[in-house]
Amino acid sequence: MANERSELDHVFHALSDPTRRAVVARLVGGPATVKDLAEPFAMALPSFLKHISVLESAQLISCNKKGRVRTCSVDRERLVAAERWFEEQNRVWQSRYANLDNLLAKLESK
Amino acid sequence: MANERSELDHVFHALSDPTRRAVVARLVGGPATVKDLAEPFAMALPSFLKHISVLESAQLISCNKKGRVRTCSVDRERLVAAERWFEEQNRVWQSRYANLDNLLAKLESK
Repeated sequence: MANERSELDHVFHALSDPTRRAVVARLVGGPATVKDLAEPFAMALPSFLKHISVLESAQLISCNKKGRVRTCSVDRERLVAAERWFEEQNRVWQSRYANLDNLLAKLESK
Repeated sequence: MANERSELDHVFHALSDPTRRAVVARLVGGPATVKDLAEPFAMALPSFLKHISVLESAQLISCNKKGRVRTCSVDRERLVAAERWFEEQNRVWQSRYANLDNLLAKLESK
């Protein structure tokens, strides 16, 4: 549980930046080189590499180097883990409203 | 789009902390007073109030004061907006694999 918490901390922190979300969204469509990933952003390469490093630390992406080319892919497991947190909240929310509906039905039938 | 981005920045930042996620999860089950929300955490009240303030800034929760009692509720819209980001990634992921399946089927039929 402690580990899972800490993983979610990293994942949500990594996703709290528009550049990093855009990189993840791009990689969900397929692997890409760091050079291609950096291209749409008006940002110095060292700044962009910091974003890549945050995404790697959160294990949302992984990058492999072949010669001078680094290619990155998304790690979908981590995205799914974060999505599951929202699904759990939805489940609680639905059951809360199901309970309210039951209560209203009981009150109306009295 | 810029606004939505900035909203997601705040929401994901707010959710990158286990105390704040626990508060949101608790409020999804129904409104609660700040006192009750703070109770499970071994934390000084000022530190806890900082977490409440981050959640309010992200508009994930809102709090109302009646006399000396502050009661907080979750703002589900914001949670849903963040969840939608994951759904969008899923959609892209699914279509990527549907394309790969189609390609494989074509290659096999040749």
